[in-house]
Amino acid sequence: MTEENKIGTYSFVAEPFHVDFTGRLTMGVLGNHLLNCAGFHATERGFGIATLNESNYTWVLSRLAIELEEMPLQYESFSVQTWIENVYRLFTDRNFAILNKDGKPIGYARSIWAMISMDTRKPADLLSLHNGSIVDYICQKECPIEKPGRIKVNQKELAGEVVTKYSDIDINGHVNSIRYIEHILDLFPLEIFREKRIRRFEMAYNAESYYGDTLAFYKEQVSENEYDIEVKKNGQEVVVRSKVIFI
Amino acid sequence: MTEENKIGTYSFVAEPFHVDFTGRLTMGVLGNHLLNCAGFHATERGFGIATLNESNYTWVLSRLAIELEEMPLQYESFSVQTWIENVYRLFTDRNFAILNKDGKPIGYARSIWAMISMDTRKPADLLSLHNGSIVDYICQKECPIEKPGRIKVNQKELAGEVVTKYSDIDINGHVNSIRYIEHILDLFPLEIFREKRIRRFEMAYNAESYYGDTLAFYKEQVSENEYDIEVKKNGQEVVVRSKVIFI
Repeated sequence: MTEENKIGTYSFVAEPFHVDFTGRLTMGVLGNHLLNCAGFHATERGFGIATLNESNYTWVLSRLAIELEEMPLQYESFSVQTWIENVYRLFTDRNFAILNKDGKPIGYARSIWAMISMDTRKPADLLSLHNGSIVDYICQKECPIEKPGRIKVNQKELAGEVVTKYSDIDINGHVNSIRYIEHILDLFPLEIFREKRIRRFEMAYNAESYYGDTLAFYKEQVSENEYDIEVKKNGQEVVVRSKVIFI
Repeated sequence: MTEENKIGTYSFVAEPFHVDFTGRLTMGVLGNHLLNCAGFHATERGFGIATLNESNYTWVLSRLAIELEEMPLQYESFSVQTWIENVYRLFTDRNFAILNKDGKPIGYARSIWAMISMDTRKPADLLSLHNGSIVDYICQKECPIEKPGRIKVNQKELAGEVVTKYSDIDINGHVNSIRYIEHILDLFPLEIFREKRIRRFEMAYNAESYYGDTLAFYKEQVSENEYDIEVKKNGQEVVVRSKVIFI
């Protein structure tokens, strides 16, 4: 298989309800597109959720880091490339490039996934799945952004609280991965998005939350343009952590 | 022009983050698709927002009514047809059919639009635009659901409050039409979506709300399966009204 064949490329247009007040695609929608592309790419290669579900396995997103020079404008075409960078026993690294309408890279993303058994919720051994054939898809394409780092929120200032509702819940009964992104960005005042843009955005998915859970959002300003966020459910367990770097 | 040429048809797939916990497409996402289709159809015929903006006019959605026998399931293909039913001086009626993967209608929708001047915010005369050529697109296709009715909320029980945030705001600086749909459905407990489905959903867009507005949601149960909702901003003006009928 050539390196080129290992890359999936998918086209999009920035729809009117998918852009924010500045007319640029929102981070939540971009995240949604990236996760869809991961799904398309895996499905086309026999590792999609539907195939896995037959044997009661599913992919779980653990980390996501997105770094951008610019976001597509309303009505602009753009495309997403995705490929597998590494496969370990319990995790796989999947990368992305975001290309503007002229095919020029305007951003990259990195994600880390585990596969779990839906019966036991325990991680599966990726190297034994389909006789380890997933490693055939490992691709050498460059992804010139830093790996997701470790996020630690020290000074805990409560920045917001959300009781999860119908629209937050996905087909698995969990708060969906994209909704967390929206709730986290909603912690910031509108002005910051007017004056700055997000240069890097990270999510670390730790645990699931469910309908009716109270999510507490703690936000720490680490430096002028950098914020760490920790989301706890029902006053206890950390559900997700996030880092937002503006420029 | 044949009746067939007057109808625009657009294909979709129900994406994972666009379905609710029952695995069916959400009403908000369907609404988003319908409004996008309206945009595609208008643009292809020279009446799109982009063209209008050049002369400082824009379309404003006034009413939307959706009636469904079923919603597409996750990963299912479906399509949306749209056409113009009527053009009046100040309003136009645009209808929709939602077709399942086999091309069978599973629902219909009706919408009412006005065109306004972005300078004066006053309505424009549709019959004088482009020498009235919009009437050439009027199409006789059947839309077998009731027109949007008049919604009146009598007994005002406060069902929820939302302070609008970054993710609520669209490129015009207004709370976006789809977000209202999500906030309204979030007034209902999860159980109702488990036991029932929405048969008919209506939105009446009255006024705009903005970043930081406090939206108060009043909900009145009209009969066993029917609810009327009124949304007021900052304790005063009615922003939207809605009717939700479950089955």
